[in-house]
Amino acid sequence: MLLKLMTWQEVEGYLGQSRGIIVPIGSTEQHGPNGLIGTDAICPEAIAARAGELGNALVAPTIPIGVAQHHMAFPGTIAWRPTTLIRVVVDTVESLARHGFERIYFLNGHGGNIATVQAAFSEVYGERSLAPADNRPPLRCILRNWWEGDSVARMRKQMFGHAEGMHATASEVAVTQHVYPDAIKQVAMSPTIAPVGRFTDAEDYRRTFPDGRIGSDPTLASPEKGAELLEASARDVADDYAKFIAA
Amino acid sequence: MLLKLMTWQEVEGYLGQSRGIIVPIGSTEQHGPNGLIGTDAICPEAIAARAGELGNALVAPTIPIGVAQHHMAFPGTIAWRPTTLIRVVVDTVESLARHGFERIYFLNGHGGNIATVQAAFSEVYGERSLAPADNRPPLRCILRNWWEGDSVARMRKQMFGHAEGMHATASEVAVTQHVYPDAIKQVAMSPTIAPVGRFTDAEDYRRTFPDGRIGSDPTLASPEKGAELLEASARDVADDYAKFIAA
Amino acid sequence: MLLKLMTWQEVEGYLGQSRGIIVPIGSTEQHGPNGLIGTDAICPEAIAARAGELGNALVAPTIPIGVAQHHMAFPGTIAWRPTTLIRVVVDTVESLARHGFERIYFLNGHGGNIATVQAAFSEVYGERSLAPADNRPPLRCILRNWWEGDSVARMRKQMFGHAEGMHATASEVAVTQHVYPDAIKQVAMSPTIAPVGRFTDAEDYRRTFPDGRIGSDPTLASPEKGAELLEASARDVADDYAKFIAA
Amino acid sequence: MLLKLMTWQEVEGYLGQSRGIIVPIGSTEQHGPNGLIGTDAICPEAIAARAGELGNALVAPTIPIGVAQHHMAFPGTIAWRPTTLIRVVVDTVESLARHGFERIYFLNGHGGNIATVQAAFSEVYGERSLAPADNRPPLRCILRNWWEGDSVARMRKQMFGHAEGMHATASEVAVTQHVYPDAIKQVAMSPTIAPVGRFTDAEDYRRTFPDGRIGSDPTLASPEKGAELLEASARDVADDYAKFIAA
Amino acid sequence: MLLKLMTWQEVEGYLGQSRGIIVPIGSTEQHGPNGLIGTDAICPEAIAARAGELGNALVAPTIPIGVAQHHMAFPGTIAWRPTTLIRVVVDTVESLARHGFERIYFLNGHGGNIATVQAAFSEVYGERSLAPADNRPPLRCILRNWWEGDSVARMRKQMFGHAEGMHATASEVAVTQHVYPDAIKQVAMSPTIAPVGRFTDAEDYRRTFPDGRIGSDPTLASPEKGAELLEASARDVADDYAKFIAA
Amino acid sequence: MLLKLMTWQEVEGYLGQSRGIIVPIGSTEQHGPNGLIGTDAICPEAIAARAGELGNALVAPTIPIGVAQHHMAFPGTIAWRPTTLIRVVVDTVESLARHGFERIYFLNGHGGNIATVQAAFSEVYGERSLAPADNRPPLRCILRNWWEGDSVARMRKQMFGHAEGMHATASEVAVTQHVYPDAIKQVAMSPTIAPVGRFTDAEDYRRTFPDGRIGSDPTLASPEKGAELLEASARDVADDYAKFIAA
Repeated sequence: MLLKLMTWQEVEGYLGQSRGIIVPIGSTEQHGPNGLIGTDAICPEAIAARAGELGNALVAPTIPIGVAQHHMAFPGTIAWRPTTLIRVVVDTVESLARHGFERIYFLNGHGGNIATVQAAFSEVYGERSLAPADNRPPLRCILRNWWEGDSVARMRKQMFGHAEGMHATASEVAVTQHVYPDAIKQVAMSPTIAPVGRFTDAEDYRRTFPDGRIGSDPTLASPEKGAELLEASARDVADDYAKFIAA
Repeated sequence: MLLKLMTWQEVEGYLGQSRGIIVPIGSTEQHGPNGLIGTDAICPEAIAARAGELGNALVAPTIPIGVAQHHMAFPGTIAWRPTTLIRVVVDTVESLARHGFERIYFLNGHGGNIATVQAAFSEVYGERSLAPADNRPPLRCILRNWWEGDSVARMRKQMFGHAEGMHATASEVAVTQHVYPDAIKQVAMSPTIAPVGRFTDAEDYRRTFPDGRIGSDPTLASPEKGAELLEASARDVADDYAKFIAA
Repeated sequence: MLLKLMTWQEVEGYLGQSRGIIVPIGSTEQHGPNGLIGTDAICPEAIAARAGELGNALVAPTIPIGVAQHHMAFPGTIAWRPTTLIRVVVDTVESLARHGFERIYFLNGHGGNIATVQAAFSEVYGERSLAPADNRPPLRCILRNWWEGDSVARMRKQMFGHAEGMHATASEVAVTQHVYPDAIKQVAMSPTIAPVGRFTDAEDYRRTFPDGRIGSDPTLASPEKGAELLEASARDVADDYAKFIAA
Repeated sequence: MLLKLMTWQEVEGYLGQSRGIIVPIGSTEQHGPNGLIGTDAICPEAIAARAGELGNALVAPTIPIGVAQHHMAFPGTIAWRPTTLIRVVVDTVESLARHGFERIYFLNGHGGNIATVQAAFSEVYGERSLAPADNRPPLRCILRNWWEGDSVARMRKQMFGHAEGMHATASEVAVTQHVYPDAIKQVAMSPTIAPVGRFTDAEDYRRTFPDGRIGSDPTLASPEKGAELLEASARDVADDYAKFIAA
Repeated sequence: MLLKLMTWQEVEGYLGQSRGIIVPIGSTEQHGPNGLIGTDAICPEAIAARAGELGNALVAPTIPIGVAQHHMAFPGTIAWRPTTLIRVVVDTVESLARHGFERIYFLNGHGGNIATVQAAFSEVYGERSLAPADNRPPLRCILRNWWEGDSVARMRKQMFGHAEGMHATASEVAVTQHVYPDAIKQVAMSPTIAPVGRFTDAEDYRRTFPDGRIGSDPTLASPEKGAELLEASARDVADDYAKFIAA
Repeated sequence: MLLKLMTWQEVEGYLGQSRGIIVPIGSTEQHGPNGLIGTDAICPEAIAARAGELGNALVAPTIPIGVAQHHMAFPGTIAWRPTTLIRVVVDTVESLARHGFERIYFLNGHGGNIATVQAAFSEVYGERSLAPADNRPPLRCILRNWWEGDSVARMRKQMFGHAEGMHATASEVAVTQHVYPDAIKQVAMSPTIAPVGRFTDAEDYRRTFPDGRIGSDPTLASPEKGAELLEASARDVADDYAKFIAA
């Protein structure tokens, strides 16, 4: 169930049965020579849609841009400051809570968002903690990364081993190849497996990772593998979400 | 050309030929008994994609949420504060300008965004005006509403006359029916044409417009009309964008 | 009735009879070779004062500075960032609402303020929309430009035709000549009618409009015409305000 | 020389001779039974205008509203949050510095503004301190209260002694009576001299000072005394400003 | 009683007897050739601890950094923007008020903090003034400088006369010598007494005061004098605090 | 080497040899029946001081308050909003970078700070990423928790096993007992080992963890164990810091 394809009366009906919602959140940033700039939004969007089918969950529109400042030396990246994304998450959560949603499940596609979204949750809770004692129902927010559920994590390891990498991973490229088969790119890469390391700002990142990848060989990706990964992750998410809304 | 489906090297190539980009911006808000909550994002996203094909323009991911506080009394609406959206637009524009984009064309799907996005442009320009005299190339931002080009405006009038309305319009519902035919809703409405009037906050809005529509009869929408409207608007946009990047 | 010339007890008495107030808002910015830097504040201040007499309305002090970043390449201009002006308008409206004012009528003298002030209204309403269901009386804000009422718009056209222009207009210069006859400047201008066009930041503006005017021939102004324009606008405003507070 | 009555070319000429400017800043707040709500803006505006004549100084438009939260329990008061006024002062100073002004002299009419305006100066300087080593000319801001110069302070004491008080003072009421003789109010007050004490927020203030005055007997004011006070203060200011711009 | 050395149950017990708390606030900034960078935090921290013993008062952790932008040209200084410190003070006060503290006594060690902390108090009160009429107990905040009580001020004058100075004063250096005798520095200074004057930003400050001192001869400091000063100031503070919480 | 006990000339000398600094950051929040409210600041402050001795590192003053909103239902807790702490960290880092520090090592005492401090680092880097290409030396920030180094983590497990817990842990209480032996509290607790679980805001936290502890039995703490833990952690930190500044 995609919120964007429903009417307000249908949402009203849904709220009679459930107080939970999944909010995909991604990033718009370089993903190496064969990875799509939209990778981090495409993956959680597609996985959330499938998890929503499996788990009868409402899925909000994808927040498509995130904390991607470290990729700014590669053209096409769009970065929101952390303080901007905090405002975005706070307003989104407050809007949903106003309608009676009590369990907000952010399905994340970008490691760089994690800290900031968690800080945003503390900002939301903090307002309630400083002005307590009303009768509002408890509000609970959680962030999960699509690649971390047990099944999908095991599958990623089996499929790609250490060539999975940390950015422009084989598995995320595979998922996007499944979702957008017409956008598959055939690009040779050298070295086969990208270097690993730490980074700070955009210039530092590009010096260390010249083609944008970290530790990955995304030429191993295929749309078939992507289909399997998507399904595995969606099942992980549906299970996890079910526990979350029951808690 | 969708930015999300490109690699950073492809964007680099594009920037060798053009300095323009289209950024769709929408809203997630009630659209009456048969209108989708995602209407205001779906329309500019689809029209921008088609205009990008026609005009060889790069299209950024859609900003899916906007200034929709007045719809908050209808479940499913998500509203960002104006000051939040200003930060979003400023960071987005600064990111694009950092890569060398010089003409940022926002294609808007929601009247409630107009003032705030224009204010955000002034915020961007203002920083340059207060700290001038560098060698940055001129940056130019523009906001256009998808329904205001000459062809599409004429077509809307011909198709629906005064039943087009101001919110949950027949034409925007039609476009979404074309884009998402599986999500077409059959709902009877009374009165046939919704009331018109002014409004302030969410409670005031809902008192005045009980089912969410303003002045429209969206039962007149059809996917066929939506297809025509989309194409007409996309041609308007492609023409307008061509002039914009040439200026 | 000027708020600044009243005591708090007199305001208390006024609130027993009316819940409306007019707030003039202007700008401090270049107005071409014979236009005063204070033009955009002087006009709404004088017109609001007269409309207040005609319509028995309280008039707040003039907010004298606004969104004028595009004039910053001309000395004397003072510009507040849009996000600054939003804070100014929000605090002003919240203060008035705290006392029981329910109809806040901003009379504006500067086109560049419109988007930002409208965004500020959404910011005010948005707080109420996100935290609804209290017993506050409805709050309604409106922005009107002094030059747009029916009578004054017609008069401007009759007096100056297409030489009225868009910035440093003949009519606004005329109003200031009536209000401050000792500050009338006699300056030759070339070309007679200034160019028209678009602009972004301050450097871009000055390149396009070298003496500051857009499309106008303000040498046509006279204090006599200014007196007529002021009176016509004040009558428009008084009528419009009467409808606003009655709604 | 009032900035609002000059053209940009005249300001350009002025900057060829001087780098200083006076910015009056006031408040819009209750001033007891016979004091005008605009008192704190009227006084520095009139005194700055006269000091500008005496000292050949440019005078900016008056910032008419300030930090007046403690007067909010009296109708008519308008209060900007301190963080709002900081933004206002920062943007105003940055605008003036952009044109080449290097000595910004704020002439203040309201004690409640002092801390916030000083904090704003530190905010301005702080940006320069964190990003130093450019070639910008030194920028210097100062805040002076119109009632604190040697001559005017002595005159206030001679005229009113301890009945001068701290808020709604006899001397500020006198200055407004001179400037706006048609707005003189005849009101009996009890007790003759208002109480003194500390206060925090608006409710606390009104409990302690029921008619709004602190420590004053403003029935002693007269327009004649106001004329003398205005002239004395303007001379103090002109002398002080001359030293300031020479430093 | 130091808050940091108590359990929450002990604080609960304290709140049964008192609603007051002392919050030391300092700065981390250069203090000339023999002054410690932590001077402005060390002094109020030690004096507050002693005053807390004398007056049975709870003492919060020291806020160790403040508005020190003007010292940024000397290595080791850390400066928070005024708007940052306002947020810090607002959140600190709101937290304490949430637990039932009603008298917050800031003991300050740095003149540069005064305006900003006062502005922060107005920000706190302002929220209450704009949204009044609840049943919250009155909240009262005060800022005192440790060097200004009657006894300590007299002692400073007796000990050092005009060599006390305004920054890196003999007395504050003495207090730190008493608190941290192992960190006493023996440094010759020239001139013996530092120059006095005004300053704006960091570069301006360093040009005027090359070794960081203003008007002082801190070689006159000794740990013995520091012990006397600390005790005198603590007694002043304990007396003043007792009056404050009784008011 | 404690920054607070040095002069600016000594810092200048240090910067000739090293570009690194350790910044302890804590929290002021309840730590159960026998844990000190200052625990999370006391631990990193003491460990950083010792690590600084071992590793010849400069140590900044401790930021004593952090993101502790979830503890606000226990008296004595002070919480800064995440957006406040971001401003604090940004200003602190910018100040240090201004002097030439290039490696900023935050030693953290509170899990609730992690996300927000990481977001603050992204905010700092983001400004550089959006405005690149200058000649600034690379700036690198890192956050480490004092309890996570290999040696101390092993020791915590050996000493306390699963009774270590997650909040008000046996080991952090032990460290504070070593640092402040006079503040050791003898309190019986029931149950012996506190419950574990998730939490959101303050009311939710207190419902789930009635005496404030999560999963711990801090009666197992002793000052002797604390001394060992402090030393182990300090060695971990000194080693880790040495690698950090060498990178």
